[in-house]
Amino acid sequence: MGPADHTEPPLSACELPAPTDASAPPGTSGSKVLRFRDGFQWEGVVPRAYKDPAAHWRGIARHVLVGEGGESAPFHVRYFEIEPRGHSTREVHEHEHVVIPIRGRGVARVGDRDVPIGFGDVVYIAPNDVHQFLNRSEEPFGFLCIVPASRDRPRPIG
Amino acid sequence: MGPADHTEPPLSACELPAPTDASAPPGTSGSKVLRFRDGFQWEGVVPRAYKDPAAHWRGIARHVLVGEGGESAPFHVRYFEIEPRGHSTREVHEHEHVVIPIRGRGVARVGDRDVPIGFGDVVYIAPNDVHQFLNRSEEPFGFLCIVPASRDRPRPIG
Repeated sequence: MGPADHTEPPLSACELPAPTDASAPPGTSGSKVLRFRDGFQWEGVVPRAYKDPAAHWRGIARHVLVGEGGESAPFHVRYFEIEPRGHSTREVHEHEHVVIPIRGRGVARVGDRDVPIGFGDVVYIAPNDVHQFLNRSEEPFGFLCIVPASRDRPRPIG
Repeated sequence: MGPADHTEPPLSACELPAPTDASAPPGTSGSKVLRFRDGFQWEGVVPRAYKDPAAHWRGIARHVLVGEGGESAPFHVRYFEIEPRGHSTREVHEHEHVVIPIRGRGVARVGDRDVPIGFGDVVYIAPNDVHQFLNRSEEPFGFLCIVPASRDRPRPIG
């Protein structure tokens, strides 16, 4: 049920075959598996800083799992990890997003309300709702974040 | 890191406030949290059968987490759980989808290739790739599945 159970031998990303269905149109991108690794890393995915350095966020790494590999999906899937005492920008945008924690515990601040969240909870942030994610624990807090592929730029809220 | 760590007192779904940002347009749906519960259930989400009964699938429950609650996102998020020795339909469709296991272990069959998958692996199924998910273990196999909100109907492959 957790990463400790992951005992299969390694398999590379992108090792799935090209489509075998004769009806598959040429030029489609291939299916692939990004392998989960100990320490919440994914093979072939280089974590980056959440945003350019600024005062309004702290201690966040960003892993783009789906959306920068030639996929055609109308959504992107990212994994964000917030260090102890880190937090995301308090911000607002028109696009909606969905957050599902898979590591540790954190807080979703939506409007003026703080909601503790943990493994498996599903947070839906509606368009134009001011929100922020915080880690008040002593362990990393990590979550999947799904957003539309086409989306407006977030605006920081002071 | 897992469901056993989930010790916060219960909070109801949909209890988040309406948008507090003065710029929020009226009529937007509210943000919400669907609480994860022991046994891989979500508060307010009634699991249903995967599809109408048929010979080409076996032992699957479907939980719609995002997509049937008035959300405007261009993607839907579901949780599917396959019983031991169960499997999904072998099928093909034009839309892409993303599968991320969060419970147990299973197999992604893509084309003629079987790939064992477990917690945190990210499976991207490209358009028109024939695929199927199988549980050959003795424990439930559950995964998040993200699809476009607007999508074609899958075609079973014999």
